Amino acid sequence: MKEQRFLNITDVQVKDAFWSRLQDLVVSTVIPYQYEIMDDKVDGAEKSHALENFRIAAGESEGEFYGMVFQDSDVAKWLEAVAYSLAIRPDPELEAKADKFIETIGKAQQEDGYIDTYFIVKDPDHKWTDLHEAHELYCMGHMIEAAVAFKEALGKDSLLNIMRKAADLICDRFGKDKVRGYPGHQEIELALIRLYRVTGERKYLDTALYFLDERGTKPDLFVEESKTCPIKIFDMDPYNLKYAQTHLPVRDQDKAVGHSVRAGYMYTAMADMASEVDDEGLLEACRKLWDNIVNRQMYITGGVGATKHGESYSIDYELPNDLVYAETCASVSVAFFAKRMLELEVNGKYADILEKELYNGIISGMQSDGKRFFYSNPLEVVPGVSGVLPEYEHIDAERPGWYRCACCPPNVARLLTSLGTYIWGESEDTVYSHLFVGGKADFSVAGGVSVSCETDYPWEGDVTYRFETGVSKDFRFALRIPEWCYDYRISINGKEEEEYDLINGYAYLDRSWKDGDTVLLELAMEPTKMYANPKVRADIGQVAFMRGPVVYCFEQADNGEDLQELRALRDGKIGVHRQRLGGLGEYPILTVKGARLIDSGELYSDEPFDYEEVTLKAVPYYLWGNREKGGMRVWIGEL
Amino acid sequence: MKEQRFLNITDVQVKDAFWSRLQDLVVSTVIPYQYEIMDDKVDGAEKSHALENFRIAAGESEGEFYGMVFQDSDVAKWLEAVAYSLAIRPDPELEAKADKFIETIGKAQQEDGYIDTYFIVKDPDHKWTDLHEAHELYCMGHMIEAAVAFKEALGKDSLLNIMRKAADLICDRFGKDKVRGYPGHQEIELALIRLYRVTGERKYLDTALYFLDERGTKPDLFVEESKTCPIKIFDMDPYNLKYAQTHLPVRDQDKAVGHSVRAGYMYTAMADMASEVDDEGLLEACRKLWDNIVNRQMYITGGVGATKHGESYSIDYELPNDLVYAETCASVSVAFFAKRMLELEVNGKYADILEKELYNGIISGMQSDGKRFFYSNPLEVVPGVSGVLPEYEHIDAERPGWYRCACCPPNVARLLTSLGTYIWGESEDTVYSHLFVGGKADFSVAGGVSVSCETDYPWEGDVTYRFETGVSKDFRFALRIPEWCYDYRISINGKEEEEYDLINGYAYLDRSWKDGDTVLLELAMEPTKMYANPKVRADIGQVAFMRGPVVYCFEQADNGEDLQELRALRDGKIGVHRQRLGGLGEYPILTVKGARLIDSGELYSDEPFDYEEVTLKAVPYYLWGNREKGGMRVWIGEL
Repeated sequence: MKEQRFLNITDVQVKDAFWSRLQDLVVSTVIPYQYEIMDDKVDGAEKSHALENFRIAAGESEGEFYGMVFQDSDVAKWLEAVAYSLAIRPDPELEAKADKFIETIGKAQQEDGYIDTYFIVKDPDHKWTDLHEAHELYCMGHMIEAAVAFKEALGKDSLLNIMRKAADLICDRFGKDKVRGYPGHQEIELALIRLYRVTGERKYLDTALYFLDERGTKPDLFVEESKTCPIKIFDMDPYNLKYAQTHLPVRDQDKAVGHSVRAGYMYTAMADMASEVDDEGLLEACRKLWDNIVNRQMYITGGVGATKHGESYSIDYELPNDLVYAETCASVSVAFFAKRMLELEVNGKYADILEKELYNGIISGMQSDGKRFFYSNPLEVVPGVSGVLPEYEHIDAERPGWYRCACCPPNVARLLTSLGTYIWGESEDTVYSHLFVGGKADFSVAGGVSVSCETDYPWEGDVTYRFETGVSKDFRFALRIPEWCYDYRISINGKEEEEYDLINGYAYLDRSWKDGDTVLLELAMEPTKMYANPKVRADIGQVAFMRGPVVYCFEQADNGEDLQELRALRDGKIGVHRQRLGGLGEYPILTVKGARLIDSGELYSDEPFDYEEVTLKAVPYYLWGNREKGGMRVWIGEL
Repeated sequence: MKEQRFLNITDVQVKDAFWSRLQDLVVSTVIPYQYEIMDDKVDGAEKSHALENFRIAAGESEGEFYGMVFQDSDVAKWLEAVAYSLAIRPDPELEAKADKFIETIGKAQQEDGYIDTYFIVKDPDHKWTDLHEAHELYCMGHMIEAAVAFKEALGKDSLLNIMRKAADLICDRFGKDKVRGYPGHQEIELALIRLYRVTGERKYLDTALYFLDERGTKPDLFVEESKTCPIKIFDMDPYNLKYAQTHLPVRDQDKAVGHSVRAGYMYTAMADMASEVDDEGLLEACRKLWDNIVNRQMYITGGVGATKHGESYSIDYELPNDLVYAETCASVSVAFFAKRMLELEVNGKYADILEKELYNGIISGMQSDGKRFFYSNPLEVVPGVSGVLPEYEHIDAERPGWYRCACCPPNVARLLTSLGTYIWGESEDTVYSHLFVGGKADFSVAGGVSVSCETDYPWEGDVTYRFETGVSKDFRFALRIPEWCYDYRISINGKEEEEYDLINGYAYLDRSWKDGDTVLLELAMEPTKMYANPKVRADIGQVAFMRGPVVYCFEQADNGEDLQELRALRDGKIGVHRQRLGGLGEYPILTVKGARLIDSGELYSDEPFDYEEVTLKAVPYYLWGNREKGGMRVWIGEL
């Protein structure tokens, strides 16, 4: 029941001032750097051993397994990013390196299709005994995604053939009238659905559906398993049902709970499944979960999973800016979920959140040099508190290097390299522009149409589309009108167009398009003061600033120490100025008429503290922490 | 170098609407109840065994030691409270019970004076081997305080004779050219100074000074001790020097750090010592520590020790209202410190804080029935968060019963029963009224003077003093003028008096007083909106309310759910009305013109949320949690 589908990566070119730079950074720096990391060639970096584990399993090398039980997934996410990267920018040397490693994976794979180096190398007797903790289905899921990426992006079957064998093993093993099971960390579900789509093999879809359907049924699988499980990897509590979303059958879940990445991957699979099997119950659950995340549990930056305890969703409206977790990977998972929901139902509310994640909570994770990454993405950083006091130890005031649990960097890499698949969509008679990203796309609508796009978004609001249709063709062009934008104008071939349907956040231009037609969308990009719902106690009396989809923040580098002393004046004007930010380049920064309260020395006073008027400067949130180390706030007091 | 001394408990009668009720509660309920608790006679209460430990040590009973290593201190604090209680209200049955138990303590004491049931009963081979964790000096210190109380309040020597033997042992053991040592939990220092004052025995003072002087010198005692220590009680980190304030010599300490009760007891001893040995360096350190606590690290309620991690002082201005620890005992320790500073230097700033602690952060610890107690005293309680989410598990939304570590209830009991010793002071030529508490006091000034006081403070601002001088006598009467009070009037014998010196928060009325003279102090008791220092990030955009010394709070019982939606209107009037609060009696409550923001369903909006005007009701903070369970806030947003 998809209303539209996103284009394949091979049908899209990204050529965009904002995104191409980030893609280049991933292609030129992150991907090669991650290979070196995984190959233990980077001095001073945490030992990875991820490649060596496979080489040992393949008999190419001698040694012991080292790393997390899910170390294989780093390689998988890297390979997935490599596939997209090669589609963006061919690189024979990189491709050869990947192909060679895929051969190693093939050699490491066991006769029956099993592939997980932890168990092959370290603990061959205990395969499949600890679904709760052992991450086998998770790692194979990621490798299946990589295999699908190699097929979709490059048309290559080598990894696909390997991972079909693994998928066949999984399908043979688990299911009704077979072994009961589902993963401790969801991922295999969405991977099997992707594999089904690329192969047409129905059993992959059926097994994904089985995993979803079985989850949350009684008796609790992980409780049962723990009674006889011969291994303990993390000693997780099997009774903590919400952590891995096994507390209820998935169709009965209506609040996002537990580990945020597990949750996000599962919701993504649920939405994918709903579209494949026309399951209204599943779709309704997805709608409720979406609503709960977006309207109750999301930071203004798109961050989700508010608490470090279990890296989890918290309770409604509990969004502390300083204690925050908001893992980069969790924002990636919301982008996945948003994309699927947008396929099911064309509604700007999904694209708005997708855009919010992309321009804020996801790319905030990556340092401008592509070598350091945030795992948690705070909205308030306080020198002497963040990363120092016990409650705040998990908050980094600077992006650290790769962690031992290196989930976020490769997740950002595979998302950014696959950005092309998030921009454009089509249905039988409609071309959709979901995101405003420069480049070009080829559609099958009306026998074949190309659309190119030029824009300096998100810094400027003008977006120009140009159509290549050959002969004139009848189809609808659907343009997303972002919810944040109150004032916009659409022109066709230089003439303002006022005749169009505006449905659920999309303007539908229905006409006969001829070659060379242009559409200009002009979005007013006014800086905007934002208020949080009164139930969010963390933001009482404070305001945040956005311009277009970009959330801004106040850094010590621009505003001095003790940012908590700053106030935005209630009726103060907000200016926009292009300014160089250290070595980062030139960006529109916001200037806000504000005040700095004066510390009189009294801790409490029966009179409001005096203040001096100051001009506050706000910079795009995603850029924070790229200059000097210091405090940062997204929300500041209002006076 | 004392500027004045507080009166002994036997020279003061408390007869006060506010305090007599609380003293009665302690005398009639808390003290008998605690005895039953310690005697394991209360069904459903945590097992104490505190009395039985002594009986076993005394050979009166058989069994094993049970409880915390510092279980003896519960008995000591109870006995201290009993002594004061008997001075307030004689009770032959209670006195006999205490005397009998003192005999047991005497029997439990070892030949050499050693008295600590943990080691006598459980681990006799390891006495004195673990000063860091074993609390022997702490427990004996508390028992010395009890002994001093029996002497001062009742003139009884039985416990004093026992504890002098223990003190002699300590003085013989520790010191220069003897065994190096100081306690892991400070308490013995202030106890030995009290013992010195009541006995005149100089070595007690010298040993207290040794403990203070030795602390924080190199090599670190607890690090050294840990290398050979044969026992591990809590497995505390000996390198965490700040925790027990051993990071610096005490004279070099200028910021309150570490475990807040350890700190408070030490600062109290430092101030006491400064006054005994005329040590300007020690006094200067006390002044700096005082300033740091009061102007950087104190909640508006008087709460100190902001973090549960180590029950410790945090860093300057880090005063979260929801994550707060603010242990009741820590507020008690600040009251001790304040009293000593006020002896050293007559300055209203000390009495103001003493008063703040008494009317807020200390008595908030006790349920109106005297049987349940807060250990931590939050300023913001949120249903579903406080006591529920991991970071907030230590926050009780209702006062729990006695803990296994039952430090706070007996600390409140001994403070309230000894309240008489905090009200009045005298120097050679001056009578001081530090706190406005009804009753009577006998001074030695000018050959003997009595002053009685009548007041309905803190609910009303009129305080009437009446002098009994016999013949006319020349002396100064020093009246504290609280810092919160901008408008006050002093009348003598019904006629307004304007001729007086106002020095450091005290009005000095210097004249020849005749029998029957009256002084009326009229303090304006306007409700006041309070603002926090701009460096306190937890209170941005929020206000709190006080009237006189009493801090108010907003409870769900009066204001509905979701207190975070409430705003006080910036120019809204604040009313005062007497109102019955459930079964608690009638109190002046504040009505504040305010607003409740309306939840539109949007999580973030570019327009301020609508609101409806409401009347907010605030009740005295110390009474919170005595009616229905629900949310509470001291600070609320301002609009």
